[in-house]
Parts: sequence; C-alpha cells; structure tokens
Amino acid sequence: MNDPRPAPVGQRRWAIAEGYIPPDSTHGDDPRLVSHETACLLNANRCDAHVAITLYFSDRDPVGPYRVTVPPQRTRHVRFNDLRDPAPVPRDTPYASVIEADVPVVVQHTRLDTRQPALALLSTIAHAEAG
Amino acid sequence: MNDPRPAPVGQRRWAIAEGYIPPDSTHGDDPRLVSHETACLLNANRCDAHVAITLYFSDRDPVGPYRVTVPPQRTRHVRFNDLRDPAPVPRDTPYASVIEADVPVVVQHTRLDTRQPALALLSTIAHAEAG
Amino acid sequence: MNDPRPAPVGQRRWAIAEGYIPPDSTHGDDPRLVSHETACLLNANRCDAHVAITLYFSDRDPVGPYRVTVPPQRTRHVRFNDLRDPAPVPRDTPYASVIEADVPVVVQHTRLDTRQPALALLSTIAHAEAG
Amino acid sequence: MNDPRPAPVGQRRWAIAEGYIPPDSTHGDDPRLVSHETACLLNANRCDAHVAITLYFSDRDPVGPYRVTVPPQRTRHVRFNDLRDPAPVPRDTPYASVIEADVPVVVQHTRLDTRQPALALLSTIAHAEAG
Repeated sequence: MNDPRPAPVGQRRWAIAEGYIPPDSTHGDDPRLVSHETACLLNANRCDAHVAITLYFSDRDPVGPYRVTVPPQRTRHVRFNDLRDPAPVPRDTPYASVIEADVPVVVQHTRLDTRQPALALLSTIAHAEAG
Repeated sequence: MNDPRPAPVGQRRWAIAEGYIPPDSTHGDDPRLVSHETACLLNANRCDAHVAITLYFSDRDPVGPYRVTVPPQRTRHVRFNDLRDPAPVPRDTPYASVIEADVPVVVQHTRLDTRQPALALLSTIAHAEAG
Repeated sequence: MNDPRPAPVGQRRWAIAEGYIPPDSTHGDDPRLVSHETACLLNANRCDAHVAITLYFSDRDPVGPYRVTVPPQRTRHVRFNDLRDPAPVPRDTPYASVIEADVPVVVQHTRLDTRQPALALLSTIAHAEAG
Repeated sequence: MNDPRPAPVGQRRWAIAEGYIPPDSTHGDDPRLVSHETACLLNANRCDAHVAITLYFSDRDPVGPYRVTVPPQRTRHVRFNDLRDPAPVPRDTPYASVIEADVPVVVQHTRLDTRQPALALLSTIAHAEAG
C-alpha cells in the first residue's frame, strides 16, 4: 500500500475566549477589508470534518450549533460575520466560541479591525482541549 | 436523559506574562476605543465559575485577588482597566497575571492600543496550567 | 564529557490554520515591508533539521512538500512568499500549513500586512502536535 | 500554617521562534515607543528565578546565555534591545530564543513596531516545553 496515512493533526475540541466583530469598517467597499473575525479550520484528514460551533455571550444563552463541513485535506477560513443559521452573529458584542469536530482539526482565531483607515490584526492558535 | 453534558472545556489555572495598559488614547471619547487590556473568560460549564485574578509587578508585591464570577455558559471579557477592588491597575506599568477558577475556564489576553490614531491589537490564548 | 547536550526543544509536527498573503503592499520598494507571511523555524539541535511544509487550500488538493533544511543551532524565518518548489504560494488566497521535521523544532507564524501605509502584524506559536 | 503555597505556574524551558527588532522608530524620542521586542517573564514562585536566554541566528553560532534574575512573585518584561552581555542583539536581523529557568516561569513574546507612525503589535505565549 503506497498511501502513507500520517497520524491525524489537531484535536476534536477547541475554544476561543475572545470574540468581537467591530461595528464599522473604513474600507467596506472591499469585502476583504470589512472588519471581521475568522475561525480558520484545517482538516488534514482523508475524510470530511463535521464541525459544530457554539457561541457564548455575556448576557444571553449560547447560540448554536453552527454546522460547517470541511472537506478532506482542505482548510476553511470561516468568517463569523457570515454565520447565519441559527442566527447572525451580532456586531459590537463580546462573544466566545467552542468548536467541536468529529475528527481532529486545527483552529486559529484572527480578527481584522478596519474601524480606522490603518488595519489592525490579531491572531492566535485557539485553545486545544487534549484528549 | 436529554441533557447532554459535555466534558468541561479549559483549565483551572492560567497565566498571562505580558501586561501593559497604555497611558493615552486618541479616541478616548468612545469607551470602546480607550487603550485597554482584557482577560476574556469563557465558562462553558452549567455552574458559576468563581475566578480570582492576581496581578504581579516588577517592583512591588502582588495585588489581589480580584474576584470575578462568570455565570454558567457565559463569557466575560474583563477589562483590567475596570478592576477596582482591592486596587486600580496602574497605567503605563508592566504587570502580569495569574487567573484561577474553581471550574475549568478558557482565558485569552487582548490589548487595544490607541496611543496613535491607528489602532494596534495583540491577542493570545493565555498559558494553561495542565492538571 | 564537557558537552552538555540539553534535551531537545520542540516537536516534530506543527500546524498553522491561518494563512493569507495580502495581494498588495504600500512600501513594496523595501523587501522588508512587502506584505508577507513567515514560518519561523528554530532548530536548537546539534544536527540538521529536515523540514517538509505542506500547504492546504479551500478548493484544491494540498501542495508540497516544500523542503527546507535548518542547520544545527540555527533559525530560519521562511517566507511563504519565497516558496517556489513545487509551486509558488498564491496571493490573496486562504491557505493553511502542516510543518513536519525529522527532529524537534519550534514553529511560529507571523504576518506583516502593508496594504495600508500603516503596518499590521499578527503572530502566534503554531499548534504543536504532541508525541 | 497560614501560608498557602500554590503549585508553581509555568515551565522551566520555553522557546520563541520569531525574533526581529525593527531598525527604525518613528517616535524614538519616547523610549516606550522605540521599536522593540520583549520577553515577558512571570515568576510566581516564592524564590528567585534564575533565567538564561540563548539567542539563535540564521548565519552564526548561538549567543548567550544572557542571565536575568526575576525576584520572587515579580514579573520582568525584558527588552531584547537592552541585552548587552555577552553581546548586544543586532537590529534588522532574524533571531530566535530559548529561555531556561531553574524554577517554573511563564514567558510571553511581544513586539512593538513603530517604523511607521502607526503602531503595530504582536504577542504570543511562548512555546512551553513540557516536563
């Protein structure tokens, strides 16, 4: 068999405690420059990754799961701005997220803030729950 | 039983070695744009999380604990700027923090620096102490 | 024997779920200020580290391995912009990466975005796959 | 005995693969705004932490150890710009670092880049070597 299947990369449960979509954008005519937050998902497996994202807020019950499928050996950079079902993500509102998958994945959190003409960026590998 | 209680997410002890609240803000009339640092706390459990934050400095004894309660299945993005008891957090002063909770939580550290008209952002998942 | 060989630092498998080389640069005449992404590799061992980078995309098969050798006790800050073999990394395209080495290394991911005259930076230690 | 000594926080070996002190600063008259990199060290123990920093480069042998003592229950935000013994850290030069301590500490890496009038910031918890 000449198909070397490496050990999976990542974990099945991840969390991002920060979350905030700025309410404004200076360069809003270019969708790439709209203020946004992203959960970058990497599925290095040879099967689909079925991902469920649950959002937590400071003053209301959790919302979710938002369901995302990442095809085998693909990455999906999911914009929280684009999540619609079961409900859009409110702007200008602190939130947090738990990401669960049925196979190991890797999750990284990024924000682009264009409230001012100059860009501001943040990113971090999410918290991986071992085991 | 139709209440699936997932395994808890996070750890009970976290640390942030960076810490610095810039002394100035360009957009200080909008509280969202005041230079600030945040400890984002996610409590995905079905019970309160009682959190104690201790601050460490370079030239004085630790200050704390600052006590914060995060309700069940909620997130709180705690601004270090807003901590008052037992003492306000000095501006323009390096510090670090240890965050301890009675149930597993997830902690992420973020700074917004608006000393210049352009925003600058940093963020990282805090150091989780295993076990 | 007066050669204290410390235990190795790092892991053999790492992943970066974020990846995006901005299509433009304001200060493109200075190569240091061209919008770019970097995988910073630290090889603290006393032997070469043979590193293989595989890139994952949202809409096509993975590309790689890109092969990089880091000499003993050296760091290499590899610009994804500079990777050529087996194929250049497309600009303005989301990607992710898995980094595998034959000895333990440490990997950190950084982006410099100069689409606007003001710089924007992000960085995170990559996800280390234990074991 | 009313002195609760908590378990130590952190690890004894850390690594930062990124490292770059920008050669210029727009606001160089204010030392806080000089382009710089910092290793933020938190020593939550009740004894001194003796820390040794070794720097790795792309084209020369490692330099170090730089020795730093962090008093009990203190943080020190060490600017790489200020390291002098055994040699200053070159500007405009990629490097990496390994940080070793005789007791557990927590390490976070931060860069402030003021080559342009707008600030740019990055930060990440360093890679903790378990065990």
